[in-house]
Formats: sequence, structure tokens, C-alpha cells
Amino acid sequence: MEENTIATISPGQSASFSKTVSEADVYMFAGVSGDFNPVHVNEEYAAKGMFKKRIAHGMLTASFVSTVLGTKLPGPGAIYAKQELKFLAPVFIGDTLTATCAVQQVIAEKNRVIMDCQVTNQHGAKVLSGEAALILPAAGEG
Amino acid sequence: MEENTIATISPGQSASFSKTVSEADVYMFAGVSGDFNPVHVNEEYAAKGMFKKRIAHGMLTASFVSTVLGTKLPGPGAIYAKQELKFLAPVFIGDTLTATCAVQQVIAEKNRVIMDCQVTNQHGAKVLSGEAALILPAAGEG
Amino acid sequence: MEENTIATISPGQSASFSKTVSEADVYMFAGVSGDFNPVHVNEEYAAKGMFKKRIAHGMLTASFVSTVLGTKLPGPGAIYAKQELKFLAPVFIGDTLTATCAVQQVIAEKNRVIMDCQVTNQHGAKVLSGEAALILPAAGEG
Amino acid sequence: MEENTIATISPGQSASFSKTVSEADVYMFAGVSGDFNPVHVNEEYAAKGMFKKRIAHGMLTASFVSTVLGTKLPGPGAIYAKQELKFLAPVFIGDTLTATCAVQQVIAEKNRVIMDCQVTNQHGAKVLSGEAALILPAAGEG
Repeated sequence: MEENTIATISPGQSASFSKTVSEADVYMFAGVSGDFNPVHVNEEYAAKGMFKKRIAHGMLTASFVSTVLGTKLPGPGAIYAKQELKFLAPVFIGDTLTATCAVQQVIAEKNRVIMDCQVTNQHGAKVLSGEAALILPAAGEG
Repeated sequence: MEENTIATISPGQSASFSKTVSEADVYMFAGVSGDFNPVHVNEEYAAKGMFKKRIAHGMLTASFVSTVLGTKLPGPGAIYAKQELKFLAPVFIGDTLTATCAVQQVIAEKNRVIMDCQVTNQHGAKVLSGEAALILPAAGEG
Repeated sequence: MEENTIATISPGQSASFSKTVSEADVYMFAGVSGDFNPVHVNEEYAAKGMFKKRIAHGMLTASFVSTVLGTKLPGPGAIYAKQELKFLAPVFIGDTLTATCAVQQVIAEKNRVIMDCQVTNQHGAKVLSGEAALILPAAGEG
Repeated sequence: MEENTIATISPGQSASFSKTVSEADVYMFAGVSGDFNPVHVNEEYAAKGMFKKRIAHGMLTASFVSTVLGTKLPGPGAIYAKQELKFLAPVFIGDTLTATCAVQQVIAEKNRVIMDCQVTNQHGAKVLSGEAALILPAAGEG
């Protein structure tokens, strides 16, 4: 696989990753991160709360953004410098998420690219948005 | 457990979570997120790159921040609204990370709290920093 | 975090941990322990048996007791010496368990504490009970 | 597989299960149980403590006992009633454990069997011991 460099990336390009969030995903994410907030792993607690059901970790949703950035666009070779995350709506077990990242700005003299990142659910509702900044190899280094 | 409300939280409070990042953590995180960037799961590829060894996903490091926010301070009951992440240094398999979040500002009329979040490794190097914003239950609702 | 010593622990203190037991929990527990008893991982076999559905491993339920003892009360620094376990009722996938451990006796001259441990499900039924013994740091060593 | 009944089990029978405890085992056990005691998942903390290295959860060692009881002797069909656990020595990542359970007493009129359970490490040191009680199907019901 050819890796992207600052010369091969340009505004208008975009890429996506989709996955149905399983109960196992949420539980393994809790197990790796240590985040056993009962809103994620306690159905009785969640039933009494604002969302009525267990919700996925916000960072699990955010991880799908980094999957696009790290494996598709810009992909391997890019260095993750910065990510803004706005959590806009709850994600429930069983929801199917699509993370989409689009090149917003290429700052060639700094080998830097700004990506617009969005995650939507199966109803088209936006659950997460936020800009990312990555450093790419200089032209010819990819 | 008493949950924090906007009335029980104040600048100066802070909380931490520590964990040694295992190879299993990185692989389970790849398996849940779908982020199989070779820099995380391909030792041969990583050996030829800038970091020489496989590195942990930035969002895995970020998940420790959300563990502090979701389980300790503010803890259960808070709603995650926003997170900024600056990735400052690579995290290697075997590194021991400490995520620390401190209350920076309480905006009582909006039930909003701004937290300063930092992750350091076992050498004291800062690997991640960034502000978080959370919505807390109003006083008396916790 | 201050660690408990034999001087900071006293009868009447108690702590809890709650979690909804997912299918993924039962399967990961099987995968780690090697306990592939069909009553845990074979729905067809379980349907013909006494419980009609797959049940969680008794030691998975017991692990929530050790989570309380190891992370909350007495918490880090205590050494696990002994645990009695009485399995009182089946735990099904989807049950929400609460493990509660209460200080029963402090044997200061031996730096030893006896804890009463109980696990109940979402219906309030007791599914496990049993005493634990732990060795704590001497006063001033925590 | 024929299942054991109270008529097919007798003192002198024994069975074993062996496994090398991996870092992944300890981390997945933490992830399922919620037991993130730093003695299990924080190498820096563990280095300063009594054991100098991260140790496995006692209940992970105990789970190997239940693997013997649930899959080998008595095996599927037996109901786990009671387990005593004495934790005798630390188990480190990389240790190879052998859990052995031997029939100690058959109480035919109560369809009850008492098993003597031991876990040793690769050096022959006993790390866990304790008696188990199980209820078996009556003769002819297996």
C-alpha cells in the first residue's frame, strides 16, 4: 500500500468506517480502559437514568474516527497531533455508526492536514463531530 | 455512592487513574475499534518507522482520561459534552500511564464544568493533554 | 490514594460493585479460565438442563467480590488470604449483580480483617455469600 | 460424553488442568471482573510493593479449579455448592499453574461430593488450596 504524503492529499477526499456497536464492544472497551461507569455496564442503573438503556463510551465512538484516520485517510504514516470531540447524542448497544473524515485543509509548509470528522448513527443523527490535525510525511517520503 | 452535582464540584479537586499498557490492551483496542494501523499491530512495519516499536492507539490513551471523568471526577451522572486531545508523545507497549483530571472552571448557571486533563508516562513525560467539558446534574439532583 | 491499614478499618464499613453480566463476560471468562462447561457456553445443552438457559461461572460472580476487596475495601495493599464461597442461586446472562463486602471483625494483633461478602441479583435474591480474610499493612505502613 | 452421577464417582479419582498465565489473561480478567487493583495492572506500583512484579488475581487462579470441577471431575451436570480458597503464594505473569482436584468424600445419601483442590506453580510450590462441595445427579440421572 502506498502511503499518503502531503503531496497526495487534497481537500474533497473523504473516507468512512462503519460498525454496529455490540454489547461485547462496550464491555471490552470497559475492560481495556477501566471505565466501568454504570451508565455503560449496569442495565438497572441505566434504566433509571436519562438514557433508559446502557450507552457506549464516547471514546469508543471516537475510536472509529481514529480508525478512519489511521487506516484509510490519511492512513498509515500520518501522525495524530490533535483531535476535537463534541459528543452530540447517546450511542446505544446495537446502533450502527458510520465515521466519516474529510480533508478540510492542507497546510503544505507544515506537512499538516486538517480533517473534518463526523459520526452518524443508523437514523442519520450526528452523534459526534470534531476536527483532527495530523502531520504527514513530506512529498516523496511516503 | 453519592453522585457529584454542580454544587459539590469545585476548582482544585482532581483524580487519577493509572495502568500499564499491555500488548493485549493494544490488540483488544484494535479489535474493538477496527484500527489495525500497522504502527499498532505490525512489529516489522513499526521497526522501520519513526518510533521503532509498536505504539498504543492515541484513543486508548485518551480512554484513560474518560475513565477518570466517568468513574471518579465528576464520576457517574455527568454527561460528556466535549474533549480536546493533543497527542504529545508516543506511548509504547509496557508504558505505565497516569491520567489526571483537575477541575478548572465551574460554570454553575449552565451546570457545566471544565476539566484540565493530562496523561503522563512512567518517566514523567506528558503524552496527552486537553480540556474536557461536562454537564452535571443541577444541585440536589445527584 | 491513601491505602487502608489495620488502623483505618473498622466494623460497619462496607463497599459495593455492580455490573450487568453480559454474554461477552461469560465467554471471555470461559476463554481465560478454560472452563467451557456446556452449561455456560452451549445454549442447546443448557435448554435441556435444570436452569433452561446458560448460566455464568460461579467464579465470575466470585470475581466481583474480589473486585470490592481489591479496589475498594480494604483496597490496594491488602493481601487476600482466604475466601469461602457458597453458591446459592444461578446467575443468568443479563442479570445485574451487586457484590457487597462489610467489615465483620478486625484482629489487630494479626493485622487481619474478616469481611462478610454477599452478591445479590436485580431481584434482591442472594446468589453468593461467604467470608473473606485479608492481611492489612500494620498501622503507619499504608 | 457420559456425565458423572453420584454412582460413578469415588474417592481416589482426580483430574487436572494446566495453563501458563499470560499478561493477556490477567488483563482480560481485570476487564471482565472490574478488578483494576494496581498490583495486577500497574507495573510501577507493583515494583514498589511486596511482590516486585504484577501478580495474577487470586480468583483467576481459583477459576482453574472450577475448570477442573466443571469440565473434568465431576464435570458437566454437577452443581457447584461451595468452595473454600486459601491463597498461599503469589502467582506472577508467566507462571504455569496446575490445578488438581481429587475426590475426598462421597456422601451418597445427599448426592454430594467433597473434592480436595490444589493449585501448584511450575516450581512445585502450592499457590492455592481448598475444599469444594458439589451436588451430583442421582444414580441413573446423568
